[in-house]
Amino acid sequence: MSERYDIAIIGSGPAGLEAAINAKIRNKNVIIFGSKDFSPKLMKAPKINNYLGFYDVSGAELKAQFEKHIENMGIKITEERINAVYAMGEYFALMVNEKMYEARAVIIATGIENGKPLKGEAEFLGKGVGYCATCDAPLYRGKTVTIVGYNKEAEEEANYVSELASSVYYVPMYRGDLSVNPSIKIVNDKPIEVCGEDSVKELVLEKETLKTDGIFVLRDSISPSQLVPGLEIEDGHIKVDRRMRTNIKRCYAAGDCTGKPYQYIKSAGEGQVAALTAVEEI
Amino acid sequence: MSERYDIAIIGSGPAGLEAAINAKIRNKNVIIFGSKDFSPKLMKAPKINNYLGFYDVSGAELKAQFEKHIENMGIKITEERINAVYAMGEYFALMVNEKMYEARAVIIATGIENGKPLKGEAEFLGKGVGYCATCDAPLYRGKTVTIVGYNKEAEEEANYVSELASSVYYVPMYRGDLSVNPSIKIVNDKPIEVCGEDSVKELVLEKETLKTDGIFVLRDSISPSQLVPGLEIEDGHIKVDRRMRTNIKRCYAAGDCTGKPYQYIKSAGEGQVAALTAVEEI
Repeated sequence: MSERYDIAIIGSGPAGLEAAINAKIRNKNVIIFGSKDFSPKLMKAPKINNYLGFYDVSGAELKAQFEKHIENMGIKITEERINAVYAMGEYFALMVNEKMYEARAVIIATGIENGKPLKGEAEFLGKGVGYCATCDAPLYRGKTVTIVGYNKEAEEEANYVSELASSVYYVPMYRGDLSVNPSIKIVNDKPIEVCGEDSVKELVLEKETLKTDGIFVLRDSISPSQLVPGLEIEDGHIKVDRRMRTNIKRCYAAGDCTGKPYQYIKSAGEGQVAALTAVEEI
Repeated sequence: MSERYDIAIIGSGPAGLEAAINAKIRNKNVIIFGSKDFSPKLMKAPKINNYLGFYDVSGAELKAQFEKHIENMGIKITEERINAVYAMGEYFALMVNEKMYEARAVIIATGIENGKPLKGEAEFLGKGVGYCATCDAPLYRGKTVTIVGYNKEAEEEANYVSELASSVYYVPMYRGDLSVNPSIKIVNDKPIEVCGEDSVKELVLEKETLKTDGIFVLRDSISPSQLVPGLEIEDGHIKVDRRMRTNIKRCYAAGDCTGKPYQYIKSAGEGQVAALTAVEEI
């Protein structure tokens, strides 16, 4: 039986980190999923002037301060990618491919995905388009699968799929060396549109068109409505009240995923509120 | 004619400071009213662990970081106490005794007053009880006035009133030397209740009862509903939406005055949102 946490936090940007700090101070058993780099947006920021207390710092410098803070508090980031969160009544089940975590409360702090969906992506979702290759791989035994990967972790999913599928295309959306199985065909091209009839038939790219039975689009973060079935979305963001409650009991949200402005200290403030509300309500 | 600011911020805690930083970055002409000590609550905090980026700091250390930040940005606190804010249509009039400031937008970041109101205070408000001695002094020409002062600035108001009233009692609610006119009677006692019939007749203190025609209660911060007539209050806090808008157009609020949790980074986050919404809407 898996350990049941008090609070699980998904996302390691300023919202997730500040939520973790507050939950920990209140003596809650907390787990935070994300990346040791915290947030790609933060890491790449050239200059930050509007985070009160730090003037004229780079994103990397601010990240180093955040790192020192959580290390001093004994908080560690669990580097796993949650694919789905299911409300089970008493608790939430957080799925990571074959593994599962349990928590009494969940805080969604996954940020915002800047990449636009592909043309046809929404239309064919569940009809050949998916966001978790390892979850759905068995459906494609002996078939052709295309994986559009936005980061290195997607390579592992591609490798896993290649053991079942007869043929795998991998479309990397990032630079750098790839380490995928030799059977995988690498396609350096820009995906444009998902086409099909009842289900997916093709992925149209700028230079060529791939015949494929399934397409997995593996972005840096999964969209909140995909992550948590039933989560209420308003104008493209998770709908929350002033205490950061979503429409699902004991499921909270904080940071960019709840709406504009997309700013660090706004996110941190919301992370704090989400954690303190969770502490009160569990 | 007075200069018209783009944005006036009332309060210099984390919410007000973060609002000022953001307004300034967006090239707005901004004025921030408060104290060079920023916030008494911050100054007195022995240990802060939950402001992301600063671990194990005292309130005074965090205050020093905030100070460096705003100084680097050329932001100066205007040390005046706003008594009332009137929505004039195109702009707001911010009253400081005999002076007036004008601003197109106002951000209320006045924190929360911990002192409970006196028994009878609300009942006799406007019937002998007031919050701005210098505003209402002319009503008490030749009469007896009692001033309950929570800080040194209240002494100036007492001095001003003593030039018109026939008799002034001053009840200091703080320690330290007083510098009030010799005609003022200092009462070192704890006020309990305001009594009267149609209007105020007495202030009952722990050890004695003062006969008085008017009572001014001069706390560190004025309550938001007193400060901005018509401001909508819900459960003791200013009602705001997720973009920190109040019910009054171009009047925003941020920080403790908008509700719990009373925390620094929650306040700073809200200050940022309030400023960015104001920038958008003016």
